Amino acid sequence: MSTKFVYTFGDGKAEGDARMNNLLGGKGANLAEMNLIGVPVPAGFTITTEVCTLYNTDGKEAVIKMIEDQVKAGIIETEKAMNAKFGAKAGEAFPLLLSVRSGARVSMPGMMNTVLNLGMNDEAVKIVADKSGNARFAWDSYRRFIQMYGDVVMGVEAEKGEHDPFEVEIDKLKAVRNIDLDTEFTAEDLQILVNKFKTIVKRKTGKDFPTCPWEQLWGAVCAVFDSWNTDRAILYRQLNQIPEEWGTAVNVQAMVYGNMGSNSATGVAFTRDASTGEDIFNGEYLIDAQGEDVVAGIRTPQEITLEGSRRWAKLQHVSEIDRAAKYPSLEESMPQSYADLNTTQQRLEDYFHDMQDLEFTIQDGKLWMLQTRSGKRTGTAMVKMVVDMLAEGMINEETALLRLEAAKLDELLHPVFEKTALTKAKALTQGLPASPGAACGRAVFFADEAEEWKERGEKIILVRLETSPEDLRGMNVAEGILTARGGMTSHAAVVARGMGKCCVSGAGEISVDYSKRKFTVNGMEINEGDWISLNGSTGIVYLGKVGTTEASLDDDFQKIMQLADKYTRMHVRTNADSPKDAKVAREFGAQGVGLCRTEHMFFEGNRIDIMREMILSNDETGRRAALAKLLPIQRADFEGIFETMDGFGVTVRLLDPPLHEFTPNDTESQAYMAEKLGITAEEVKQKVDSLHEFNPMLGHRGCRLGIVYPEITEMQARAIIEAACNLKAKGFNPKAEIMVPLVGEVKELQLQAGIIRSVAEVVFAEKGMRVDYQVGTMIEIPRAALTADQIAEVAEFFSFGTNDLTQMAYGYSRDDAGKFLPEYLKKGILKTDPFAVLDQTGVGQLVEMGTAKGRSTNPKLKVGICGEHGGEPSSVIFCDKVGMNYVSCSPFRVPIARLAAAQAALIHSK
Amino acid sequence: MSTKFVYTFGDGKAEGDARMNNLLGGKGANLAEMNLIGVPVPAGFTITTEVCTLYNTDGKEAVIKMIEDQVKAGIIETEKAMNAKFGAKAGEAFPLLLSVRSGARVSMPGMMNTVLNLGMNDEAVKIVADKSGNARFAWDSYRRFIQMYGDVVMGVEAEKGEHDPFEVEIDKLKAVRNIDLDTEFTAEDLQILVNKFKTIVKRKTGKDFPTCPWEQLWGAVCAVFDSWNTDRAILYRQLNQIPEEWGTAVNVQAMVYGNMGSNSATGVAFTRDASTGEDIFNGEYLIDAQGEDVVAGIRTPQEITLEGSRRWAKLQHVSEIDRAAKYPSLEESMPQSYADLNTTQQRLEDYFHDMQDLEFTIQDGKLWMLQTRSGKRTGTAMVKMVVDMLAEGMINEETALLRLEAAKLDELLHPVFEKTALTKAKALTQGLPASPGAACGRAVFFADEAEEWKERGEKIILVRLETSPEDLRGMNVAEGILTARGGMTSHAAVVARGMGKCCVSGAGEISVDYSKRKFTVNGMEINEGDWISLNGSTGIVYLGKVGTTEASLDDDFQKIMQLADKYTRMHVRTNADSPKDAKVAREFGAQGVGLCRTEHMFFEGNRIDIMREMILSNDETGRRAALAKLLPIQRADFEGIFETMDGFGVTVRLLDPPLHEFTPNDTESQAYMAEKLGITAEEVKQKVDSLHEFNPMLGHRGCRLGIVYPEITEMQARAIIEAACNLKAKGFNPKAEIMVPLVGEVKELQLQAGIIRSVAEVVFAEKGMRVDYQVGTMIEIPRAALTADQIAEVAEFFSFGTNDLTQMAYGYSRDDAGKFLPEYLKKGILKTDPFAVLDQTGVGQLVEMGTAKGRSTNPKLKVGICGEHGGEPSSVIFCDKVGMNYVSCSPFRVPIARLAAAQAALIHSK
Repeated sequence: MSTKFVYTFGDGKAEGDARMNNLLGGKGANLAEMNLIGVPVPAGFTITTEVCTLYNTDGKEAVIKMIEDQVKAGIIETEKAMNAKFGAKAGEAFPLLLSVRSGARVSMPGMMNTVLNLGMNDEAVKIVADKSGNARFAWDSYRRFIQMYGDVVMGVEAEKGEHDPFEVEIDKLKAVRNIDLDTEFTAEDLQILVNKFKTIVKRKTGKDFPTCPWEQLWGAVCAVFDSWNTDRAILYRQLNQIPEEWGTAVNVQAMVYGNMGSNSATGVAFTRDASTGEDIFNGEYLIDAQGEDVVAGIRTPQEITLEGSRRWAKLQHVSEIDRAAKYPSLEESMPQSYADLNTTQQRLEDYFHDMQDLEFTIQDGKLWMLQTRSGKRTGTAMVKMVVDMLAEGMINEETALLRLEAAKLDELLHPVFEKTALTKAKALTQGLPASPGAACGRAVFFADEAEEWKERGEKIILVRLETSPEDLRGMNVAEGILTARGGMTSHAAVVARGMGKCCVSGAGEISVDYSKRKFTVNGMEINEGDWISLNGSTGIVYLGKVGTTEASLDDDFQKIMQLADKYTRMHVRTNADSPKDAKVAREFGAQGVGLCRTEHMFFEGNRIDIMREMILSNDETGRRAALAKLLPIQRADFEGIFETMDGFGVTVRLLDPPLHEFTPNDTESQAYMAEKLGITAEEVKQKVDSLHEFNPMLGHRGCRLGIVYPEITEMQARAIIEAACNLKAKGFNPKAEIMVPLVGEVKELQLQAGIIRSVAEVVFAEKGMRVDYQVGTMIEIPRAALTADQIAEVAEFFSFGTNDLTQMAYGYSRDDAGKFLPEYLKKGILKTDPFAVLDQTGVGQLVEMGTAKGRSTNPKLKVGICGEHGGEPSSVIFCDKVGMNYVSCSPFRVPIARLAAAQAALIHSK
Repeated sequence: MSTKFVYTFGDGKAEGDARMNNLLGGKGANLAEMNLIGVPVPAGFTITTEVCTLYNTDGKEAVIKMIEDQVKAGIIETEKAMNAKFGAKAGEAFPLLLSVRSGARVSMPGMMNTVLNLGMNDEAVKIVADKSGNARFAWDSYRRFIQMYGDVVMGVEAEKGEHDPFEVEIDKLKAVRNIDLDTEFTAEDLQILVNKFKTIVKRKTGKDFPTCPWEQLWGAVCAVFDSWNTDRAILYRQLNQIPEEWGTAVNVQAMVYGNMGSNSATGVAFTRDASTGEDIFNGEYLIDAQGEDVVAGIRTPQEITLEGSRRWAKLQHVSEIDRAAKYPSLEESMPQSYADLNTTQQRLEDYFHDMQDLEFTIQDGKLWMLQTRSGKRTGTAMVKMVVDMLAEGMINEETALLRLEAAKLDELLHPVFEKTALTKAKALTQGLPASPGAACGRAVFFADEAEEWKERGEKIILVRLETSPEDLRGMNVAEGILTARGGMTSHAAVVARGMGKCCVSGAGEISVDYSKRKFTVNGMEINEGDWISLNGSTGIVYLGKVGTTEASLDDDFQKIMQLADKYTRMHVRTNADSPKDAKVAREFGAQGVGLCRTEHMFFEGNRIDIMREMILSNDETGRRAALAKLLPIQRADFEGIFETMDGFGVTVRLLDPPLHEFTPNDTESQAYMAEKLGITAEEVKQKVDSLHEFNPMLGHRGCRLGIVYPEITEMQARAIIEAACNLKAKGFNPKAEIMVPLVGEVKELQLQAGIIRSVAEVVFAEKGMRVDYQVGTMIEIPRAALTADQIAEVAEFFSFGTNDLTQMAYGYSRDDAGKFLPEYLKKGILKTDPFAVLDQTGVGQLVEMGTAKGRSTNPKLKVGICGEHGGEPSSVIFCDKVGMNYVSCSPFRVPIARLAAAQAALIHSK
């Protein structure tokens, strides 16, 4: 760690620059850089992020002592540059007032604290009034300072049920004066407010408002550091995967004043449209105001450009005359400042090669830039800007790819709610954003009934406590799925994402009453047939129908995908259980199937009955009879998938879930099966009970089924190999990869592979032809990763099943982790949900070890991933790092994975 | 691999020796060695174990081709040494007849095949009759050969419900001749039998009995190799942890004939008493007989020594006159041969420094030794022999320790059935030998009622489908526990072993009907109150009362323990949940507690009600109120344990199981709790339902409880620290080690350790004193082992919880694995049950990695194990290898662990 803690900037000089983002934070680094390129920036200095880290470990006093001298030196530099004096006495220079702002490596908008006008006190206000000749401005700055400092540093809060005590005083005085806007206060009014505010501070905190500028400064600096660890900041970091240890820098900067009268203003601007991506300069400003006024919503901000202003007026039904009079654009009201700003914005975008989000202040006609940073944008805008900038030659292909946030592509792939409709909708509750998209339908509580509603032409939302494979058909016909229990990787969530269907899971506030066919939430009652809407991207559940629009993959999107494919090393497959899913994925560019879960095929139509017949059989003969009926059905499915994926590998996983997932669990279906099989309902019940397991996730499933009941493996192997032969006979090029699940010991795979290869030889003899196929395994049990060298001697490919691997490596049941995972995320024990983002520290070791050990005995081993993580960008990048051949994910995440794979290749080729 | 496949011996020469046990098998190596030291052994050769391995991989034809020349050379050598000719024609030398016997590295008695008198055919029998002048002997050898070869090589079997077809013919002829014994057959009778036997072979197999000696030889050699893979051999290997890849050797040896008349005999002998360990030469023999007759039970074998013979007669109520006339000892009947044998036995024991199990044949007065090997013995005999031989100077301390089979000590530690009583008892079924010992009691089906029976002074066996923590008190008062479900590490098994209580688990044949208070098994019905007996060492369940005797730890046992402690590096702790358990373990030499499961304390008396009150509370205040009531109870328990283990470390694990294990699950107890808490039964039910988990093993348990409900950790930490302070105040030296369970991420431990240390400081301040204590964690989650370097920065000790680690590394639920584990063992996928014997290949990697990574960041880290494996000898040896400081196991396994730890130290110091 360096011993330089403070970096000054100002007057066209700076100790830092844009590359020092990690040390100075984004804001500080760019303030330095703007100085260096001659953009007018108020002088100041940045206290580094390292100081924040020390602040958290060593405490306040130690840190202040450590940086005190450097801060004092920084103030002296700032005084020189701005020709002002911090803590000026009467007769000295103009008082140097400061803004103190946070600035992390990445922007955390609104999360941390800011204090403006620091340095104000009873003495300074008079000098400012005197020297500026503007008493109103001086007192306005003072009252603003007390208000912000009181809030941020001294912790003045509203009592429960009360409004902000400062705003209450402001409103009272407005009422007395009979005015609407802050700008209408006179200097005297503001002086009254200053006194009232001081009283509030004393009453709320028991302390006098500090008058010493240095005491003020240290209070503000520490408050910024403290704001790194507020609950909301921690939550934001979790949601955005920002490491806790990064810390924030503090930017201490000379104030410039947008509240100096009608020739002063302040505003924010974007160099392009952050929502659509169009190359249109836009933004908002307020005359005679300071920074927070623009976003506070007390005064209506005005558009910066004339074009923007006219568009705004049209939407708001404001006449052109009124607009020009009451809400003129900056272009009209201050043409020279606007011209300066327009030049500067273009310059900054060109300089930083990206759309910029700017803050500026115009003090008495002079433009000052307070911040520039790459602007946040929607997925659509992100894509358009990258494509445009590439065409403009502003960025190269590598920059284009690396700038795209893969996860944001998701927004482009699912139907979305209309923005206006959303603002009017009544939110019922918020669950987990399990599968993105927007869905409206009538609430239905039973999967079989969902099908009936669908047949009647109704749109429905399936509402369940949780879902199980029996609900699959109901889920398939639903517009969306809402569950009260289960997390981001619950059955409902996983299946919904696979289907590209909107899902909100784990909406814990809703209470489902199946018997009354209703659910209650926050006092509301939603009955069967009532309309509700789900936002799968936010987890919010709305009452009634909220209008949606379809997402479409436009040309820009296709361009990006082509660019990704140009740079990628891994290929991307899809997890698809039916020819239909495979087709969708193919359209999204999937090159093969990484996971075809054969069990999902057993739930369609009357297949479940045959499956149950198999399970309820008491002997091998009975099981074989039922399996013989399933054979042609499975074969047909496989033929469909092989056809769709002609020429690409198709990894078919043998039966995986515990058998009791298929059993009839209610009296009615037990009676039905009993009659069908000619046995008593009691016998059916006994068999079903005997299949009960305490921990089914660790129970009789995966290849353990195929080992105890080899006839199941035989049937599935036959269906796959016959399908491949039939397709080859028709001129297709099927590439079957048969995957044995849940292997933990090489002998399991040896036994199962033996069966598969024997069956294949029999089929080849019957058909008089051969097809190429491979036998491999899923690596999803920790012991499989640990003994991967042995397993790879038998396996031709590995596919990491990181869902189960995560469950077992962490000892977390996906279905139960909802009881403690939220607490773990809240307390910072976990940075991210390990079922959503691959845990590279722990689980990743197993993946890396499994890959390396596997290749050590079988250098040709093909390695991929088919867990949920295969479609999560940071996990995809990890997969590239460990040298996988491909990733596989649900169809709707294929484009995301393609982009992430390309980014990974670029990162790792460096 | 060598290209020498055949090792000859004979005439005082041998190509092998005793050290070549692995290659030649135990029998072959010792036959060679006996030759070398001048003991008379019939000449022959050994085909190596490597050939068996090739036989299994490359097949019969390839192997015969490979070894054919060497076998032929071996036959020639044998012919020379024995002055006989294999396949002799009339006019040539005496026909060389052969014995063909298996011989693995370790003895697998009765598991594999033997063929005697090989080489016999219609021509040879005449030459033998002619040259020996004993036609009866010749035909007896021939009929024996057809009988054995027909059975072993040609697969002649009895039809279902029939007796052995050969024996049927023998019995028929005996009836016709009106005789009792085989020896009474004349040469003509035996000739008739030979013809009948040939007919049987033809009828049963469709093949003629082979006449070519070479065809016979290859048939027999292959049959021995084949017998390596019979079901019973595989099962035996699994039970005895003998690797499949070891293979068996084949010993081809010239026949010597104990059936050459009244001056010939055959027998088996032990150089010491295999049952008691006393230094008394003993054994049995038969005149005019061949090997298998002694054990076949058709004729009553006679004692070798006069002393033994007299003791036998007394037990059998045979008068001395009758004895001397009908059942004389070898000492009496062939004094010279006896003298030779007695000299030889003493010589062999001295030479091999161990009790020998001998086979011998006396052919016409001359003694031939056919086998010598270290004899199997009971646990008692094992201990006595080692102590005696050490005293005699026959072995040194190191050999003494390494010779002891640690697992066998178990026999000495539990009450045992009287042998005679056992032979008369009616066996009902066999389950798993879950916890050793012998127990008799009346069958009772409900845990609470078990207590009532006990209070009435009844001895009871608790019979359950399976047990749960709610049954703990009932288990505690039972003599033994019988369950229909669950494996060797089911709840019942683990708890019973911890209690040192007999348990048979997973007795799948029994069908429990709780409503009728009975169970049925194999057509029998056992009602509540009926007497049954359990043998926890064999898993056999008996009808009625079977008499038992108490085991006692005698002086020999204590000597061995002292010897072990002299050489050990690791110390041995115990898993104890109460002062009582701790006391028992202390007496067995435990030096500290490695695992005190605090939750077990919650089931006694009315504690469960308080626990339920805590769980059913809706808020922290309610939970804290209930916890306050538990505090003094826990503190008192800890005080008792600290007192018992004064000066030794006591590792207390914080609450571990999911809360729903404590909840009232039936309507009655829900109603009781509802009344107690003043809420509705429906509310109780809802709360209980909300705690339901799909996979509780991977659910909300371990430190996840303490993180969501920190007040639980606070209470437990306070109880421990207060107890330690109280004890110290009384002059004791308590060493508390507080263990946080189920940590998978260092931050979990950081948070919990923070709470513990804060509580400790508060208690120290309250008490005005301090005690030393440590905070550590259980390593039981794969991710904990993978990130042990991080965790060890916070932990002062690690204790490997290998039960859970095995569950998660394999993905096997202990409670459900019964559905596939038996099949896995049967098919050889697993060599041993990984819950009984630590899987060093996979799980062991995590243990080794965890230890090494932990010590890499914290060199002082104390490391131990507290899973079931801590008392299993091979696992204890592994723990020493990875450098653990201690192992911990249930009280009754402490002596076993002490011995294994000493053995490990000896092995690893080499």
